Amino acid sequence: MRRTLSSRYNKPGLAPGTPIHIGERRTESTKITVFEYDASHVQERQLGSVEECGECKDSKGVVWINIDGIHDISVVETVGKIFGIHPLVQEDIVNTNQRPKVEEYDSYLFAIVKMLSEEQYSSALQAEQVSMIVTPRIVISFQEKEGDVFDPLRERLRTGKGTVRQRGSDYLAYCLIDAIVDHYFLIMENLEDRILPLEEQVIDDPQPRVLQSIHHLKNDLVFLRRSLWPLREMLARMDRDRLPLIQEDTRPFLRDVHDHTIQIIELLESFQEILSGLMDVHLTSISNRMNNIMKLLTVIATIFIPLTFVAGVYGMNFKYMPELAWRWGYPAVLGLMVLIFIGMLIFFKRRNWL
Amino acid sequence: MRRTLSSRYNKPGLAPGTPIHIGERRTESTKITVFEYDASHVQERQLGSVEECGECKDSKGVVWINIDGIHDISVVETVGKIFGIHPLVQEDIVNTNQRPKVEEYDSYLFAIVKMLSEEQYSSALQAEQVSMIVTPRIVISFQEKEGDVFDPLRERLRTGKGTVRQRGSDYLAYCLIDAIVDHYFLIMENLEDRILPLEEQVIDDPQPRVLQSIHHLKNDLVFLRRSLWPLREMLARMDRDRLPLIQEDTRPFLRDVHDHTIQIIELLESFQEILSGLMDVHLTSISNRMNNIMKLLTVIATIFIPLTFVAGVYGMNFKYMPELAWRWGYPAVLGLMVLIFIGMLIFFKRRNWL
Amino acid sequence: MRRTLSSRYNKPGLAPGTPIHIGERRTESTKITVFEYDASHVQERQLGSVEECGECKDSKGVVWINIDGIHDISVVETVGKIFGIHPLVQEDIVNTNQRPKVEEYDSYLFAIVKMLSEEQYSSALQAEQVSMIVTPRIVISFQEKEGDVFDPLRERLRTGKGTVRQRGSDYLAYCLIDAIVDHYFLIMENLEDRILPLEEQVIDDPQPRVLQSIHHLKNDLVFLRRSLWPLREMLARMDRDRLPLIQEDTRPFLRDVHDHTIQIIELLESFQEILSGLMDVHLTSISNRMNNIMKLLTVIATIFIPLTFVAGVYGMNFKYMPELAWRWGYPAVLGLMVLIFIGMLIFFKRRNWL
Amino acid sequence: MRRTLSSRYNKPGLAPGTPIHIGERRTESTKITVFEYDASHVQERQLGSVEECGECKDSKGVVWINIDGIHDISVVETVGKIFGIHPLVQEDIVNTNQRPKVEEYDSYLFAIVKMLSEEQYSSALQAEQVSMIVTPRIVISFQEKEGDVFDPLRERLRTGKGTVRQRGSDYLAYCLIDAIVDHYFLIMENLEDRILPLEEQVIDDPQPRVLQSIHHLKNDLVFLRRSLWPLREMLARMDRDRLPLIQEDTRPFLRDVHDHTIQIIELLESFQEILSGLMDVHLTSISNRMNNIMKLLTVIATIFIPLTFVAGVYGMNFKYMPELAWRWGYPAVLGLMVLIFIGMLIFFKRRNWL
Amino acid sequence: MRRTLSSRYNKPGLAPGTPIHIGERRTESTKITVFEYDASHVQERQLGSVEECGECKDSKGVVWINIDGIHDISVVETVGKIFGIHPLVQEDIVNTNQRPKVEEYDSYLFAIVKMLSEEQYSSALQAEQVSMIVTPRIVISFQEKEGDVFDPLRERLRTGKGTVRQRGSDYLAYCLIDAIVDHYFLIMENLEDRILPLEEQVIDDPQPRVLQSIHHLKNDLVFLRRSLWPLREMLARMDRDRLPLIQEDTRPFLRDVHDHTIQIIELLESFQEILSGLMDVHLTSISNRMNNIMKLLTVIATIFIPLTFVAGVYGMNFKYMPELAWRWGYPAVLGLMVLIFIGMLIFFKRRNWL
Repeated sequence: MRRTLSSRYNKPGLAPGTPIHIGERRTESTKITVFEYDASHVQERQLGSVEECGECKDSKGVVWINIDGIHDISVVETVGKIFGIHPLVQEDIVNTNQRPKVEEYDSYLFAIVKMLSEEQYSSALQAEQVSMIVTPRIVISFQEKEGDVFDPLRERLRTGKGTVRQRGSDYLAYCLIDAIVDHYFLIMENLEDRILPLEEQVIDDPQPRVLQSIHHLKNDLVFLRRSLWPLREMLARMDRDRLPLIQEDTRPFLRDVHDHTIQIIELLESFQEILSGLMDVHLTSISNRMNNIMKLLTVIATIFIPLTFVAGVYGMNFKYMPELAWRWGYPAVLGLMVLIFIGMLIFFKRRNWL
Repeated sequence: MRRTLSSRYNKPGLAPGTPIHIGERRTESTKITVFEYDASHVQERQLGSVEECGECKDSKGVVWINIDGIHDISVVETVGKIFGIHPLVQEDIVNTNQRPKVEEYDSYLFAIVKMLSEEQYSSALQAEQVSMIVTPRIVISFQEKEGDVFDPLRERLRTGKGTVRQRGSDYLAYCLIDAIVDHYFLIMENLEDRILPLEEQVIDDPQPRVLQSIHHLKNDLVFLRRSLWPLREMLARMDRDRLPLIQEDTRPFLRDVHDHTIQIIELLESFQEILSGLMDVHLTSISNRMNNIMKLLTVIATIFIPLTFVAGVYGMNFKYMPELAWRWGYPAVLGLMVLIFIGMLIFFKRRNWL
Repeated sequence: MRRTLSSRYNKPGLAPGTPIHIGERRTESTKITVFEYDASHVQERQLGSVEECGECKDSKGVVWINIDGIHDISVVETVGKIFGIHPLVQEDIVNTNQRPKVEEYDSYLFAIVKMLSEEQYSSALQAEQVSMIVTPRIVISFQEKEGDVFDPLRERLRTGKGTVRQRGSDYLAYCLIDAIVDHYFLIMENLEDRILPLEEQVIDDPQPRVLQSIHHLKNDLVFLRRSLWPLREMLARMDRDRLPLIQEDTRPFLRDVHDHTIQIIELLESFQEILSGLMDVHLTSISNRMNNIMKLLTVIATIFIPLTFVAGVYGMNFKYMPELAWRWGYPAVLGLMVLIFIGMLIFFKRRNWL
Repeated sequence: MRRTLSSRYNKPGLAPGTPIHIGERRTESTKITVFEYDASHVQERQLGSVEECGECKDSKGVVWINIDGIHDISVVETVGKIFGIHPLVQEDIVNTNQRPKVEEYDSYLFAIVKMLSEEQYSSALQAEQVSMIVTPRIVISFQEKEGDVFDPLRERLRTGKGTVRQRGSDYLAYCLIDAIVDHYFLIMENLEDRILPLEEQVIDDPQPRVLQSIHHLKNDLVFLRRSLWPLREMLARMDRDRLPLIQEDTRPFLRDVHDHTIQIIELLESFQEILSGLMDVHLTSISNRMNNIMKLLTVIATIFIPLTFVAGVYGMNFKYMPELAWRWGYPAVLGLMVLIFIGMLIFFKRRNWL
Repeated sequence: MRRTLSSRYNKPGLAPGTPIHIGERRTESTKITVFEYDASHVQERQLGSVEECGECKDSKGVVWINIDGIHDISVVETVGKIFGIHPLVQEDIVNTNQRPKVEEYDSYLFAIVKMLSEEQYSSALQAEQVSMIVTPRIVISFQEKEGDVFDPLRERLRTGKGTVRQRGSDYLAYCLIDAIVDHYFLIMENLEDRILPLEEQVIDDPQPRVLQSIHHLKNDLVFLRRSLWPLREMLARMDRDRLPLIQEDTRPFLRDVHDHTIQIIELLESFQEILSGLMDVHLTSISNRMNNIMKLLTVIATIFIPLTFVAGVYGMNFKYMPELAWRWGYPAVLGLMVLIFIGMLIFFKRRNWL
């Protein structure tokens, strides 16, 4: 997020529907893995070329084709041709600046979700676009690079744990979205771990670096919200529009993941309010510090400036200064100074400055 | 709230619908109490094991099964099996991070509410999740730990006061929700008792500790609102959707408790505005103080620095300084100093600085 | 408002629908006055006991029963029994924490409005709850204490001015609401009289006391809005829902009083924005003052500190300081000091600091 | 606006529908002008008394009766009697605190719009209420005083330019509203001319007077918005509700004037955001200035206070201070002072303070 | 934007529907170019006079008439006459202050869009109004001056790339809007390039010039939003209202460009939040700097003022000051001074001020 927000949208005058890869090139080669399964068996393999996808159309069970790497436009175009996908959808898959959304087409659903991760060393947030084509029997998912949050799902597919093997492609699509949304909770926890220590620092030790942390966290939340609001909207639509591809008994699960996004958004809004509050507290803390600094300066100056003045008076070189010749002049002046000093101390004590 | 907001949601890739306890483990053993009643009699007992719940299905009156302690997943699963409860509902019961909500299933209603309490010594707010299954004759309530706000209701059940014994399970569910919502008013009163003294402190004595109190109160309100808004929504839905399990003459009561949540939310929003105002007042008060500090410093410095300069001039050791030898030099300089002093006092008096 | 916002809601576990007085006890005895009128005659009397209300049911004209003092629950319960009023309504009448609202029951309308007044000496706002039961021929109004804004209406009833005597109970209820809403304008005028002088003070003389006034006014507006928004909503509902008890030709009058509440709310929002603006102006004014204070300090220090240094140099006691013995040393140093002084003055003049 | 916002609403307990003039009395006498026209001819005259209005009812063409001065209630009451106007409408006409609105009655439309103008010398905004009664053939407009924005329309009526003479009373009403709305653009331009110079002042020379200007402009915008939002709402309703008095081919014109109000409101909101921004910039500029002032003070103090201390040390009168007797003591101390001075300069140069 | 916001709307009392050019005069002569095309051929020419447009009505393919320069009202009036365009539409075309909108007329659609560009040297944003008339076979587009973002589209028309040549006038209109919206992304990227460097400057080096940049960027965003929100609304309407002129298979493309505007608006809102955050950070950074300045001043003053006082004491000229005569007086005082100095250093070290 700290680098670019709009991540460079440059399509100068291309015909609409021309797929062109926009975004960072994140992987070298394209990797295609296929899961074919039904209640009784499961088969997992890796395809050598995109063209082999066509064979999956004749499979009897549910098929999940996962494609890592979308910078190679020909891959998407080939898949598009095989499964009859609208050119605009192809364009959306390769342009990684899309908002999460769901679109209904005659024979398939098209959904885009953002999968979040944190960079290893900095804790900068990164979004990876996951696009899904859902047909009655096949789910095709496109990712920008290898490495995702679907491994537990793959394990469930292999072992047959849970009910995923008994259900259709709509449930598989739900499982993918659910895995992504569940991962958001982890992101939220990490954010919270970064916010909570700031609460104390901001009052005890309001350093500029705290300010920077608050600012970065705020921007991270702005970034997160841009992924989350459309996601919520999209899941609400999937529930509300009663899409024919979604079976009736998958609906409660979609409602459940919808509830999760609402929960995350409410957490996010709480974080935002807390950070706004922290910013105010920070500013006020700084003003408080300033007051303390100024109090010290004022106390010192107010006590010693008059004393110095008195010393200055008796440092004058006039010939006729009777006090100077007086035997007790020096002790008397010292006494006066001590009196002024004590008087000032009492004055500041009363004002609660010391 | 001060500790964690997201209270750790960690379900790494489990199959959806797998109940897993999420939240603090708040009690050692699970305790199950059962009330069976109708207009004429009432029976109260404690069950030894969850399996005995099954017998309640054949009871003729209304049955209230209250279960304290949900960390033991097998309890919830057993209840789920006996009463035919959807796996997602079971998952929601044991995951204490749910938002308040109501869901309609074929043969039962499922509702989640947050019961608030304040910690004994700190006044930190704590939320406990109360889940309810409402069937036409049975209400099953799940709490995280023993100790709740239902004792007066239990008393009414035992003594037959009020109309609760004459009515069905929907009215019992209403009574549970009503007891929880009524308790929110107490929480609000306590919050108010913490806010009101701040109003004076913030103007008279703007200490950093005031700032901290305001900040904590603000976060408490953020926390409260996250429980309240979904509750309001849920009660609005219960009124609007005309759920078949809710009888017609229970409806005005639901509308009444709905009104109460609106009242609480409006109070909450008033509190939030007052606290925001206090924050501004605090910041401005600090600036005001700063002005006073600087005024004092400026008055002292502006009066004594020129005087010290004059003394310095006559402290120079030039051979030929006619004033030094002059008989009235010393009194004249002292007089000049007094004049400067008085002149400055008048100047600052006119500017209203003294 | 300055005292309590939630005005203590303490109903620990009572059965719903149990009337219990909540709020300040504001009057000693309960006073019941009855107006019976039709187009041709009017009769006004005071009842000795609540039970006599029953006789009004057989009156031929329109009847207005006004009850001052609701702390005596038995009064409300007796009225409730005579006119067949729902227990929840009775509870709402005696609990003075209700929001303004209108509820439709089979044979009557129930409305709650807040009547505002200002305390005599402080200008603190006070709200009194006025509840109304409107049946086709009878209006029963409950007030917390004697003294209200209905005297002009009573006068119109007595003298037959206006059309109120020709119309039914719905028009009478409208007149009561209209009188209350009209009184809000007076409150707004008084608020404005408190806001306008602040505008000048805040720029010319930003004292902490101004800050306090702004803060109190803001809280008063928060308090007012809590009465006004539900009132607006309630009047909108009365217009929109086409309640059968409201006759067709009373409707334009309701729309008129609805317009008035919108006007008041818009005024209120203007006041809020002006006060927010004043707060900002106040803070900025203080910063401006600070700048002026610091400028003065800096000018004085910057001029005299170097001069004092020069004097200090020639106050040193070195044996071999040729300048000291020089005939023109003293005048030269004095001249140098004057030059520095004038140079500084020019410097600050150029920077526009003097 | 600077004077009163609520412009005194004092109707203590009058019967609803009693017309009473509220607002400033802005003209001495009431002036009634009548335009009668159709496509082929036009007649313009001034009526001596209100009663003559009755004759217009028999006119064959379209009639526009314009009445300047509404403080004389009898005028409005007479017009009300002649044209059968609801008492509440009469009350609204003479009460100049109304919000812009449109109301449909059986035989006429009633519309209220605010005509804005700027005071000649100050640029304070003034609103004048223009009420319109639109019947199928007659438009009656009421203004508070003489002088309006309708002269170009009168010219078009006299000369027959444009299509107004070919069209009905609904188009005439549209023309009146359009003239008023077009005048708002002028007001906006003048506001802009007051805002733009502030942009520079606020950064280059943040004087308190700038603060005052921003504050006054903000209040002017609050005032403007209170006229504009209801106007927009009213025009939206006229378009949406398909009022029978509005002919089909007048509708695009209403939509056009509706678009204009939206444009004005968007301008207004832009102005508000710019002013808010300016307020922030102003506050920050002041802080920046403060920093510069403090830097100067700190530089001077930090350089000369140590130097003065050194001079003070050698001004001490100890008998045995070997340096004092040393031949090169004085030049050595002067050299030390120069070194300190230069060192400090370098230090501040490095910190970019000079 | 920096110059004028309302760009002078001066139409003092003209009849509605009178076209009058409002806006800057941006080109000398009017230039009319025509594309006639169908799937098989394309013809491109430049017209000598407006009247020749009439011939296009008989063309068999799709015709795109592009007119650069609208200050010459007769051109628009002539086109209006030839194609039967409503006078209000003509007025809107020449008045460059319109909001983006779409209006449906009997035989054509009328759409207004704002084409943005950046000035070459300053990066000030400029908006140019593009109006379109879409009939079943003809698209007429009006621009304020030559130079636009349509060149790639022209190239596609000439070469037959993409599907534009196979489709109708509605698709051509979509292509024009799409080209304009795509260009907004470029604008956003440039804005981002101006925002990102501020993030660092604001913490490391909070100069007034940064403040100015933030303020200008904020105003640019206000300006942008005024073009974007109505555009979004307009595209939503085109999708929702199922305008008969838009063919079914063009609809997905409109939805796509609608998605793009939402994306841009979300980016815009992110930018706004980031800038608001930056403003806060800037203010806090300045306060932080102030603290550091004051710390330095306080450290220096607090160390040297007491030392100077001590020196002053022993600079007094009393006859009887035993210390002065003491052999070790001078070293003892110097030692005392060093002790005070070191003590102070330790004190400030502990407070973390050094």
